[in-house]
Amino acid sequence: MPSHRKKMGRFEKLITFNEAVKKLTSTSWNCIPVEKIDPNDSLGRISANDVVSDVDVPSFNRSAVDGYAVIFSDVSGASEFNPITLDILGEIEAGQSSHHSLETGYSYEIYTGGQIPDKSDSVVMAEDAVRRGDTVEITRPVRKYENVSRSGEDISNGQLIISRGDVIRAQHLASLIAIGHDDVEVFKKVRMGIISTGNEIVPGTGSVKNTTQPLLLNHFQSGYTDTIDLGTVSDVEKELRSTLEKILKEDLQVIVITGGTSLGAKDIVPDVVQEFGSLVFGGVLIKPGRTISIYNVSGVPVFCVSGLPVAALISLEAFYNEFLKHETGLVGSRIRVKARLTERVANRDAKRAYLRVTLKNTEMGVVAEPLRITGSGILSSLLKANGLVVIPENVEGLEENEIVDVTVIGDVV
Amino acid sequence: MPSHRKKMGRFEKLITFNEAVKKLTSTSWNCIPVEKIDPNDSLGRISANDVVSDVDVPSFNRSAVDGYAVIFSDVSGASEFNPITLDILGEIEAGQSSHHSLETGYSYEIYTGGQIPDKSDSVVMAEDAVRRGDTVEITRPVRKYENVSRSGEDISNGQLIISRGDVIRAQHLASLIAIGHDDVEVFKKVRMGIISTGNEIVPGTGSVKNTTQPLLLNHFQSGYTDTIDLGTVSDVEKELRSTLEKILKEDLQVIVITGGTSLGAKDIVPDVVQEFGSLVFGGVLIKPGRTISIYNVSGVPVFCVSGLPVAALISLEAFYNEFLKHETGLVGSRIRVKARLTERVANRDAKRAYLRVTLKNTEMGVVAEPLRITGSGILSSLLKANGLVVIPENVEGLEENEIVDVTVIGDVV
Repeated sequence: MPSHRKKMGRFEKLITFNEAVKKLTSTSWNCIPVEKIDPNDSLGRISANDVVSDVDVPSFNRSAVDGYAVIFSDVSGASEFNPITLDILGEIEAGQSSHHSLETGYSYEIYTGGQIPDKSDSVVMAEDAVRRGDTVEITRPVRKYENVSRSGEDISNGQLIISRGDVIRAQHLASLIAIGHDDVEVFKKVRMGIISTGNEIVPGTGSVKNTTQPLLLNHFQSGYTDTIDLGTVSDVEKELRSTLEKILKEDLQVIVITGGTSLGAKDIVPDVVQEFGSLVFGGVLIKPGRTISIYNVSGVPVFCVSGLPVAALISLEAFYNEFLKHETGLVGSRIRVKARLTERVANRDAKRAYLRVTLKNTEMGVVAEPLRITGSGILSSLLKANGLVVIPENVEGLEENEIVDVTVIGDVV
Repeated sequence: MPSHRKKMGRFEKLITFNEAVKKLTSTSWNCIPVEKIDPNDSLGRISANDVVSDVDVPSFNRSAVDGYAVIFSDVSGASEFNPITLDILGEIEAGQSSHHSLETGYSYEIYTGGQIPDKSDSVVMAEDAVRRGDTVEITRPVRKYENVSRSGEDISNGQLIISRGDVIRAQHLASLIAIGHDDVEVFKKVRMGIISTGNEIVPGTGSVKNTTQPLLLNHFQSGYTDTIDLGTVSDVEKELRSTLEKILKEDLQVIVITGGTSLGAKDIVPDVVQEFGSLVFGGVLIKPGRTISIYNVSGVPVFCVSGLPVAALISLEAFYNEFLKHETGLVGSRIRVKARLTERVANRDAKRAYLRVTLKNTEMGVVAEPLRITGSGILSSLLKANGLVVIPENVEGLEENEIVDVTVIGDVV
C-alpha cells in the first residue's frame, strides 16, 4: 500500500444527534452578516429582526368593490322587484382620501379603494345597482360594513409582520411595502462552498460519475443560501491541502467536503482539515450519514460528509438546518406534516434513522408509505420518496398506523 | 365626469371555473418553446419529455461501505469473542472495476464504491473488523448482499427518471447525471410581464402603495417562470395602449394586467386590450378574483386581474396553473395535503370559493382552521394563512371535521 495511506480506523465513538447538535451550537461561529435591503429584493432571505407595523392599513375606511357608498339602513328593503332609489352626490376615486359626507337618501358612486364618505357604512356592488342619470336604483340590501375595508382591517398598528428567522415570502415583502418600509434587515445569503474528493470521481480520469456534488449544489441552493461549486480534488493530501488554503481566503460562511470521510484508510480529509482547525464532532448515531464530522476552521464550519449522495444530503440537511436555526433563528425551511404510517418499521441498531417515505393523500388524510430501499447511495430513493421521517435512536421502531411527523421533500400528489 | 369614462357596467354573465378552464385550454396559444440544456442548469425547470434510463446504476455490484469483501458463509459465526480470521488478497478502490476474485477463507479490503470481487457476496464494515498485517479478524456476521449495492439497484435500465411536466428537482438532475445524460429537454422559462394600472398607484402622484405588483412579481417567480416588472400606467386609455403596443413586441409568453378590470366606469383595460385581441372569457364564478378576464393577443394570453392583492394572486394562480398544466403538462407546482376542517364554512353565493386556512399539525394529524377574514384586499390574510381550500360553486359549504384538500402556500408548523 502507498505510504500516505493509513490503516482503516474507527470513529472513536459515535455520539447521538442531540449531543452533536449541542456541540455544534455551543461552538462560537463567525456571525452570518446582516444587511439592509429593499423589500423588493428580499424574497427568500431570512429576516434578521421582528418587524412590527407602525401604521394602520388601510389608513381609512375604503371600498372593497366598485359600487355605491350608502347607509345600510336606507337599502334594507331593496330587491330586484322593489329597488330603492338614491340620489348620487358625486364620485369617489380609488385611493382618494378627500372628505365627503352622506345623508339618508343619498349615495356616492365609489371605486375600489376609494374612501367611504362620513356617515356611510356600506357599499352596494355595482352589479346590485342600476344607475339612471344622477340617481341609482339599489336592487339588493347590504349588511353594515359590507364591502368596506375598515381602517386597520388589513394590517393594524402594532401588528407583527415578520419574525426574526422567518423566510421572507411574497406576502411578507408586499406587507412591508404596504406599511411603508423602504428597507428590511436580512441575513446575507450564506455562501456554501462544496468540494468533492476522491480519485474515482475526478473528471477525466475517474471512473465514477459524481452525482453527490450536483445533488448538494442544487438541493441547498435557496433564497438564503448560495451554493458554490469548488470542484473535485483527488485523494492526495497535498492537493486537498492547497485547495483548502485557497478557499479559506474566500468569503464563505460554510464549507462542505464530500467523500473521504468514512472509516477507510484513504480518508485523508480528516487529517488535512484538522491541520487547519479543530474537530467539533466526528461521527453521529444517524443513518444514513453517520460519518458526518464538523470542524471549526477560523470560525467557519467545515462539514465533512459522505461521498454517497443520500447520506451526504440527509446528514448535511440535518446539521445545516440546526446551524442556521441557531445562527439566524431560521424557523422553517421545509414543510412538515403529520401522516399515518402504513406499516411497521423497525429501527434495531440504536441510530437516529431518516426513513424515506412516500406521502399520499387518501380519503382518510395523509399517509406515509415507508420505502424499502435504505441504502445511503440509492439516489433513486429520492425520486420515489417525497418525505422523511425521523426515528430517534432510542426508539426501536414505529408502529403501523402511528401518526408520524414528515418533512416534505417532494410533491404530494 | 370626464368623457373617457363609461358608466358602470356589469359582466355579461359570470361563467363557472370549469367552463373558464375549458375556454382557456381550447384556445390555441403560442407554444412555450423548449430547449436542450445541461442537467446542471435545469433546477426548477419543467421537463418537456419523459426520460427513461438506458443503463444500470451502478453498472456493477459495488461496496456501500469501507470494509472487507467476503463470502457471507465464511463469517456466519463471527463475534467479538470469536472473531474469524481471513487472509487479505489485496485492496479494491472506489470506482475500480478491475476483475478480482475470492475463494473461501479470503477477503479483499474494499472502499466504498469499489467493485465486489467475483464469488464475494457481502462486505463487512471496517468497524466490525480488525486488520492485523495481511489478515483481518471479522467480529460480526453479515447477511448475503449486506453492504453491497447491486448492479441496477439504484437506477435500472428502463426505469422512468422524469416525466414530462415534472418540475426538475436536485434528485432528478443528479439522476440524469448518474445515467450519463449530458442534456435534458425542458421548457424555456415562461416570461410573465406584469403591468399595474391605476391613477392611485402611479409612483409619485398616486396616494396608494402598489402592493399587488410586488406580490405577484415575487409569488410567481420560480424555476420555470421569470416575472418581469413592466411598471405602472395610469387609467388613461392612450397610455395603456402605447404601453401594450410596446410590450407586445417583447419576448413574453404571458402578460398580466392588474387593476382596472372590475365593474367600474374607469375600467379601461378591457376596452384597450380587446383592440389587440379577442376575449377568451370575462368574469368567473370564483371568490376572490371573479373579475379575471383572459384575452388572446396574437397567441399570447393576457390575464387581466383585480388590482386587489389577494384577488389578483388567487385568480392568477388558479388560471396560470391551468394554463401551464395544459401547455407543458406541469404536474404539481404546489404541495397539496388532506386536512380535517376544524369548523363549518358556508358558501352561499354559488361561487367557487378559495378559503384561506391555517394548517396545523396536531396529535391526530393535520387540521385546517378557516380564517375569518375573506376580503380580497386583505394582504395580511396571506401572512396568517398557510393553505387554500377550494369550495366548488355547487357546494353550499364544508362541514366541521370534513377532510379537505389543502394547497400549501406557507410553512406548516
